[in-house]
Amino acid sequence: MTASPFDHPLLSGLLGDDEVSVHLGAAADLDAMAAFEAALARAEAAAGLIPAEAGPAIAGACAQFVPNRGDIRIAAARDGVVVVEWVRQLRAAVPEAHREYVHFGATSQDVIDTSLMVRLKAILSLFEDRLGRIVEALGVLDGRFGGNRLMARTRMQDALEISVSGRIADWRLPLQRHIDRLAAVREAVLVLQLGGAVGDRAKFGEKAGEVVALMAAELGLWAPDKAWHSQRDGMFACASWLAGVSGTLGKIGQDIALMALAGDGQIALAGGGGSSAMPHKSNPVAAEVLVGLSRYNSTLVSGMGQAMVHEQERSGAAWTLEWLAFPQMLMTTGAGLLLAERLLGAVEGMGA
Amino acid sequence: MTASPFDHPLLSGLLGDDEVSVHLGAAADLDAMAAFEAALARAEAAAGLIPAEAGPAIAGACAQFVPNRGDIRIAAARDGVVVVEWVRQLRAAVPEAHREYVHFGATSQDVIDTSLMVRLKAILSLFEDRLGRIVEALGVLDGRFGGNRLMARTRMQDALEISVSGRIADWRLPLQRHIDRLAAVREAVLVLQLGGAVGDRAKFGEKAGEVVALMAAELGLWAPDKAWHSQRDGMFACASWLAGVSGTLGKIGQDIALMALAGDGQIALAGGGGSSAMPHKSNPVAAEVLVGLSRYNSTLVSGMGQAMVHEQERSGAAWTLEWLAFPQMLMTTGAGLLLAERLLGAVEGMGA
Amino acid sequence: MTASPFDHPLLSGLLGDDEVSVHLGAAADLDAMAAFEAALARAEAAAGLIPAEAGPAIAGACAQFVPNRGDIRIAAARDGVVVVEWVRQLRAAVPEAHREYVHFGATSQDVIDTSLMVRLKAILSLFEDRLGRIVEALGVLDGRFGGNRLMARTRMQDALEISVSGRIADWRLPLQRHIDRLAAVREAVLVLQLGGAVGDRAKFGEKAGEVVALMAAELGLWAPDKAWHSQRDGMFACASWLAGVSGTLGKIGQDIALMALAGDGQIALAGGGGSSAMPHKSNPVAAEVLVGLSRYNSTLVSGMGQAMVHEQERSGAAWTLEWLAFPQMLMTTGAGLLLAERLLGAVEGMGA
Amino acid sequence: MTASPFDHPLLSGLLGDDEVSVHLGAAADLDAMAAFEAALARAEAAAGLIPAEAGPAIAGACAQFVPNRGDIRIAAARDGVVVVEWVRQLRAAVPEAHREYVHFGATSQDVIDTSLMVRLKAILSLFEDRLGRIVEALGVLDGRFGGNRLMARTRMQDALEISVSGRIADWRLPLQRHIDRLAAVREAVLVLQLGGAVGDRAKFGEKAGEVVALMAAELGLWAPDKAWHSQRDGMFACASWLAGVSGTLGKIGQDIALMALAGDGQIALAGGGGSSAMPHKSNPVAAEVLVGLSRYNSTLVSGMGQAMVHEQERSGAAWTLEWLAFPQMLMTTGAGLLLAERLLGAVEGMGA
Repeated sequence: MTASPFDHPLLSGLLGDDEVSVHLGAAADLDAMAAFEAALARAEAAAGLIPAEAGPAIAGACAQFVPNRGDIRIAAARDGVVVVEWVRQLRAAVPEAHREYVHFGATSQDVIDTSLMVRLKAILSLFEDRLGRIVEALGVLDGRFGGNRLMARTRMQDALEISVSGRIADWRLPLQRHIDRLAAVREAVLVLQLGGAVGDRAKFGEKAGEVVALMAAELGLWAPDKAWHSQRDGMFACASWLAGVSGTLGKIGQDIALMALAGDGQIALAGGGGSSAMPHKSNPVAAEVLVGLSRYNSTLVSGMGQAMVHEQERSGAAWTLEWLAFPQMLMTTGAGLLLAERLLGAVEGMGA
Repeated sequence: MTASPFDHPLLSGLLGDDEVSVHLGAAADLDAMAAFEAALARAEAAAGLIPAEAGPAIAGACAQFVPNRGDIRIAAARDGVVVVEWVRQLRAAVPEAHREYVHFGATSQDVIDTSLMVRLKAILSLFEDRLGRIVEALGVLDGRFGGNRLMARTRMQDALEISVSGRIADWRLPLQRHIDRLAAVREAVLVLQLGGAVGDRAKFGEKAGEVVALMAAELGLWAPDKAWHSQRDGMFACASWLAGVSGTLGKIGQDIALMALAGDGQIALAGGGGSSAMPHKSNPVAAEVLVGLSRYNSTLVSGMGQAMVHEQERSGAAWTLEWLAFPQMLMTTGAGLLLAERLLGAVEGMGA
Repeated sequence: MTASPFDHPLLSGLLGDDEVSVHLGAAADLDAMAAFEAALARAEAAAGLIPAEAGPAIAGACAQFVPNRGDIRIAAARDGVVVVEWVRQLRAAVPEAHREYVHFGATSQDVIDTSLMVRLKAILSLFEDRLGRIVEALGVLDGRFGGNRLMARTRMQDALEISVSGRIADWRLPLQRHIDRLAAVREAVLVLQLGGAVGDRAKFGEKAGEVVALMAAELGLWAPDKAWHSQRDGMFACASWLAGVSGTLGKIGQDIALMALAGDGQIALAGGGGSSAMPHKSNPVAAEVLVGLSRYNSTLVSGMGQAMVHEQERSGAAWTLEWLAFPQMLMTTGAGLLLAERLLGAVEGMGA
Repeated sequence: MTASPFDHPLLSGLLGDDEVSVHLGAAADLDAMAAFEAALARAEAAAGLIPAEAGPAIAGACAQFVPNRGDIRIAAARDGVVVVEWVRQLRAAVPEAHREYVHFGATSQDVIDTSLMVRLKAILSLFEDRLGRIVEALGVLDGRFGGNRLMARTRMQDALEISVSGRIADWRLPLQRHIDRLAAVREAVLVLQLGGAVGDRAKFGEKAGEVVALMAAELGLWAPDKAWHSQRDGMFACASWLAGVSGTLGKIGQDIALMALAGDGQIALAGGGGSSAMPHKSNPVAAEVLVGLSRYNSTLVSGMGQAMVHEQERSGAAWTLEWLAFPQMLMTTGAGLLLAERLLGAVEGMGA
């Protein structure tokens, strides 16, 4: 039992997801924050909001910048965000002539939300790939065993026989739909954040649209009409998608655990988990864990809903709540996708 | 305090939604169930699965059928669904020659899920209309007061002045996006349910596609490739959309309550609520209730996520959980939309 | 599918609880509200805060009072509570000389919270009785079948044989502890609410303690040192207890559904539910519904936690959230207890 | 944004809790696991279940044992728990003559649940101390400012003046009750886990009671009548207590944030947080974060409720869900207590 099994030296063997973890770590966050400031400076220079030389100068400093993490950690306790101290350090790393143009017109939330989106973009691609492989694996299972029969169970009772293909379709179709829904999720959430202190881009004047367009293009994000500081529907749409994916994986896990329980040959699994007390047992560990992960993500999505009540122009309360719940949701989804792929790969027979 | 304020003889004055209620009531449910059986019989007759005369005969009986509710209520305790006894009664109301063709090839879940979808279609249209009116009302407010200024507040502190227009945009843009997302929600959830006992449409043979297409057309629903008995991602997508709408309304309510609190003229509201102890007070009741409704829907969406773990071919547990949570979510969303419209209509001034 | 299956003309056959419903209905609420005002008037008269004759006069009027529900419903929309208009009506029903003493020093929240507590007291007693009967029924099953053996299942796999007695103990011990915890729950929540407009009992002066003690005694509630208008820890403690009870019942239901699934004689149940498509089936309906109810209550308890953030001296948002979630929790718990009792009564064999 | 702000190199400055973290880390877990095996061996030797020399030999090895974490991490992926491989390694570290007596009669869940309880005991003491200090700090504030007046606010509107003492009491009384409730929570949850493979202590025969009593005494835990492998009401009672504590802290945070917002001198706070865009601002960061933490814990408690449906003799799904949610709840509570203490220490004035 540890603060987070996802990051735990031992339990991450079961629940970890190294690929997602790296995107959620401090290093990737700091890199994406620097990418934001570099893109901002370049765009502002191009738009004539800051001197032409300030753009490459700041961008160059961003590329080299190694922040003092200890000082940021200390300052976060006071400021509630890491950006205030980080910008102070970044500014000091920029040639004096250009310092005043660092972070010009932006605010902490612009940096943090955009950094998340840059990394979320990569994570969603990862998830799409994994979903694709799982759908493919289900196709393979369907090809091998789809013609077999197994006893359908309704309301936890034997009902009538169905084809294995039928049960696999109940797993595959929702996963395919989750993939199809990704385009809308991306458009909802992978959006540049840029609004300045109170979200109105006041310091950019009529150049606001140009700066936003340039930054969005450089960072590979959508360009919004207005900063979405307090409009969190996109975050919630993404969180719902994550919980939906986990929910479908949980159904698959539950079905496989029940098939394994029945002991009537509905499924044959290679390499189940051991028991410290009963060496004869082979447990459908991954199947069960999928259920647990699904229930966890369904729990957490509620917190993301609560965070939609993001009062006024910036809510420290609602925003902090997102920081707590959303990365957990990403790890939960990622771990589930890894486990599902592994579990389906271990299926050696279905039905008869 | 009552079992459900939405249906309460007194509190429904505050929290009720007569238009949604009528769709969720027993009468509308029984009507839609009958519409399902009528459409089924007509489609099966057209497809040659049952005698040609059985179609209109059964459909005619459905149109006239008045079930004995008391007997259904008693049987529901035993069967876990109302359909078993209801079909028994319906069959008895059909001319003897055609009785055996009633409900042919269908199962309880087909009837209940489809009945919900028929009514959900109407409810979503209602919600779309209301959202449209709210967006419009925000446009009117923007036209009247958008040019005024008010003090932005970030992290619960005065920040810098913004235009009223800016704050209104933070309310309007997510609502417009919720409207835009409705098309995908409809496609995800407004889907005919037809699978028979174990979801494989076994009794329809090669006529399955034809029956599904005819029924879907008659009932105004999408035609699925396969019964979605245990594929609940569409239900969850709809639930998430509902929670998202409530979340945005909750943010609007919270903002207005805070604007009213400030006492610095950020907002002027007509006709606030009274107090039994302080006659001088005028409370922003609707604004506060929007926050409560939002938090309730964000709570409930978690239950709909849990219900995605719909094990095997039919889960009494997960399905019952939907029956408990989903109608509450519809009422919560409906009540919030009504209150938001009323609240915005009471705004007599914003900013200065 | 209806707004609330608990109150539904058909589904309440499965999910209803007539005994709890009556306490949560408008009639019982209005009666308890009148009892509050009567007790208040008597206590204030005894303490000399209002004329001696006003006490019995008001109490007498309360006993006879039949409010106009339609007007209250309309006013609730404006005031956010039913009390403002209800007190106005009550006052009009009191002889003119005493009218000004009606509701003296009290506020809406005093009436509503106390009315809930009066009824909650009865509901908790009901639950205690039911829990006692379930524990007793488990004792009977233990006496009949406890010596039999059944296959334990860990991680959804056959493990080693255990005694039936062992499995029953895993059901009974938590239920017994829930009973034991009731005393603390009662002390936490069955507390008179009396604070006046802003919770400081200003109008009672030094007589506050006396009034509180007299009222608490008359109404059978604990006497608090201070009004708990914005201190909702007692409500949350009760909500947690309810979710805990449902959680244990859900575990019992899940176990029984799995025992019934195995088909190896782990359990024999009389009178399962029918299927509209498979007359041969006997479904463990009550067992499954217990799982659904458990997951619903675990969902709702989150909302009660959110309602603890009851800002300042009275939060319309947090309080409304309680009105939405808490009665649902009571119905969920009640329905589960009824179903569990029924389910255990249908057990005709366990193990071998 | 990181996988868990609690463990994050930067954000833990704001949200971390070094004292709780250390108890939840892998090192403390492995130590407590070793303490379990040592206590088990000593108790079994004393009871004559294993050779007298095996007790100290195994206990001695436990004290020295340094497991190979990499191998455990790998095995956890297969076994779903860390214990199988860890016991294998421990056994290898014990003199060959005694190896067969290591972990005798126990199972993985005994080790893991008991390890948690040993550490939870320390964490709850920490929380009790912090709660005590917060209550004390509130007493100090009451002493300094309690006689001042401030405007009460009901339903987000100015109501009537109250004493600062009154508002402080609404914060202090629930915290005091949380402290009072700790005794019952401890008795519910700080319980030795010992049941063996299927929870019936079969290998201990009539010595079971003696072994349990000795181990419980050595480890400072309660001795249960039966293993609570699948009885999770104690865990849920503890989780509810944690959410309750956070809920009260969230109310305090919300109140202070609103007092700071009003700008009418309701509260004076030293050292608020900075802004990257508005150097003039001083944000009530800790107050807001308390609200976010409260909402997160109220979200998570729902997951712990879901985990009560712990099917049959051991549920990998429900147990994994606890591993995900419960440590987060402990960190959330711990962080909130630290922040509340800091926040109250920064109060320099209340009311006027």
